[in-house]
Amino acid sequence: MTSEVKARAHANVALVKYFGKRDVPLNLPAAPSVSMTLSPLNTETVLSFADGVDDQVLLADVPAEEKFSRRISKYLNIFRDLSGNHRGVRVTTSNNFPTAAGLASSASGFAALAAGAARLFDVNMDIAQLSAMARRGSGSAARSVCGGYVLWHRGEKNDGTDSFAESVAPPEHWDLRILVGVTTTGPKEIGSTVAMERTRTESPYYNAWIKSAHGAAKEAVDAILKKDFEKLGDITEHSALAMHAAMMAAAPPIVFLKGTTLDVFHLARSLRKEGTAAYFTCDAGPQPKLLCQAKDADIIARQLRAFPGIKDVIHCAPAEGVRVETNTTTYCEK
Amino acid sequence: MTSEVKARAHANVALVKYFGKRDVPLNLPAAPSVSMTLSPLNTETVLSFADGVDDQVLLADVPAEEKFSRRISKYLNIFRDLSGNHRGVRVTTSNNFPTAAGLASSASGFAALAAGAARLFDVNMDIAQLSAMARRGSGSAARSVCGGYVLWHRGEKNDGTDSFAESVAPPEHWDLRILVGVTTTGPKEIGSTVAMERTRTESPYYNAWIKSAHGAAKEAVDAILKKDFEKLGDITEHSALAMHAAMMAAAPPIVFLKGTTLDVFHLARSLRKEGTAAYFTCDAGPQPKLLCQAKDADIIARQLRAFPGIKDVIHCAPAEGVRVETNTTTYCEK
Repeated sequence: MTSEVKARAHANVALVKYFGKRDVPLNLPAAPSVSMTLSPLNTETVLSFADGVDDQVLLADVPAEEKFSRRISKYLNIFRDLSGNHRGVRVTTSNNFPTAAGLASSASGFAALAAGAARLFDVNMDIAQLSAMARRGSGSAARSVCGGYVLWHRGEKNDGTDSFAESVAPPEHWDLRILVGVTTTGPKEIGSTVAMERTRTESPYYNAWIKSAHGAAKEAVDAILKKDFEKLGDITEHSALAMHAAMMAAAPPIVFLKGTTLDVFHLARSLRKEGTAAYFTCDAGPQPKLLCQAKDADIIARQLRAFPGIKDVIHCAPAEGVRVETNTTTYCEK
Repeated sequence: MTSEVKARAHANVALVKYFGKRDVPLNLPAAPSVSMTLSPLNTETVLSFADGVDDQVLLADVPAEEKFSRRISKYLNIFRDLSGNHRGVRVTTSNNFPTAAGLASSASGFAALAAGAARLFDVNMDIAQLSAMARRGSGSAARSVCGGYVLWHRGEKNDGTDSFAESVAPPEHWDLRILVGVTTTGPKEIGSTVAMERTRTESPYYNAWIKSAHGAAKEAVDAILKKDFEKLGDITEHSALAMHAAMMAAAPPIVFLKGTTLDVFHLARSLRKEGTAAYFTCDAGPQPKLLCQAKDADIIARQLRAFPGIKDVIHCAPAEGVRVETNTTTYCEK
């Protein structure tokens, strides 16, 4: 029996955003989304069985807050129920980037946890099932299971079994880059799920937002397969702005964007006017991100690093999917 | 016969925004809007008949650019046609604030011009007709004709005769203040009409935006009559954000907001958390504006003036409507 499992998954950035649930407990999205899995941002999680029935959750070697531990335990219960093995688990997890600052640590975190727990509890799953399982921990974790360029299907079923992500192109298909501008490392004012639900119920733009995301996902996959950078850039920027716009119009408004974030959008626009193709995106947090091609990445990163309000730049490239190691085997999802 | 007419009208700020036309040539709005007429921002325009049939247009004593002169001449043709008097007009107009920087100089400009021309050409109009006439020069000029707190009716008719503004409360009804944060005095990247039309045809949120504005206008008038500041503030902030959100979601996006503008929204929110009631608004330009009560205005103005990126603060109070003086009479619209 496997005694210790080590799982690593990368963060991802949505090019066509996921923002809205058709089912909250199961994290079923109201629309499909498209992402790029990001190296070097990752979560490494080590799992082993504990002596008793209680779980122990450590975040970077420090016992996690109770709320977070409970969320992990609840999630592990799915594997305990599936396997009939009700032992407690010792989970040690660490991110190589700040948590809860709009950098999607829950995506890499639950992708690693799902893959690690499946192996620890010896629950046999194919990649689609693993993605759907990660999704139950955190929606966008469905995408972090897969490598390269990823499409997360909305699905139609109430049980969510058809709402999983799959890689539409491996990392080596296209060397695009994401430059993350770090503006703040503090926690967000409001969690993603609360923001989504308030937008769904209180924004006059929610229905139009969800409707527009369907076409955008299809077009983005097409642009990825054809390596049409300008088209993918336009779709990416539009999706991010339309998502933030839908939130801004909620009552009361939800504004994750800060001044610096918005000025980086204007920077991208002025870079394009000067002939350098950079496109803005931003998730439910204040960190601006620029999508660009590998050939332009260094020059854009330099400009972003020098930009007022930007404390650091993380230079990301397409990453492989989740990797699992045990004392006997290694498995990696491309 | 009147030989020289001097007309003065104030700028206004929409609390419930006008952004979308049901008829472009007539400037008929797709939804009603609500505004406050603003002292001290004004346009003073002096009109007299020229010797021949050509118009002479001077902007602060300097001959205006041809494009602007043609717009004025075309507008004066309406009065020439109504009066049967086809003489040229000498127009000298000056604003006491920067033009074309999102501070609605066309609103005060066309309100003054309409009132002045009506008097010069001896065209008899009541205030509603004058407002509808100002509207044909620039949509929001319909509101600058009126004093205090103003409702601009959408109207239903194709000829626009029922789309005029009226004062719902005089300036002395409620001493609210608008603090305009001046971030830049340069011209806008894109004109309001082009922005409105692109939003109408290219934003998935346009229909929902227009729909939401109807209810907001009704609620804003109600809040003004009841002097319910919190309610008016919420409506004001929501209307501004929803308008900018509708533009942001257009393809390609329209983003008038700059980083500083957005940070002033966050400033308003943090002021409210600390117990000082300030609400954000912003028109189709980068200048943030804060709505507040007279008692809090000085302290908020001080904070805004010290805010990074803010070059100046213009402290505005409710103003009277358009005022017309001739060599023999003075007329002022409250």
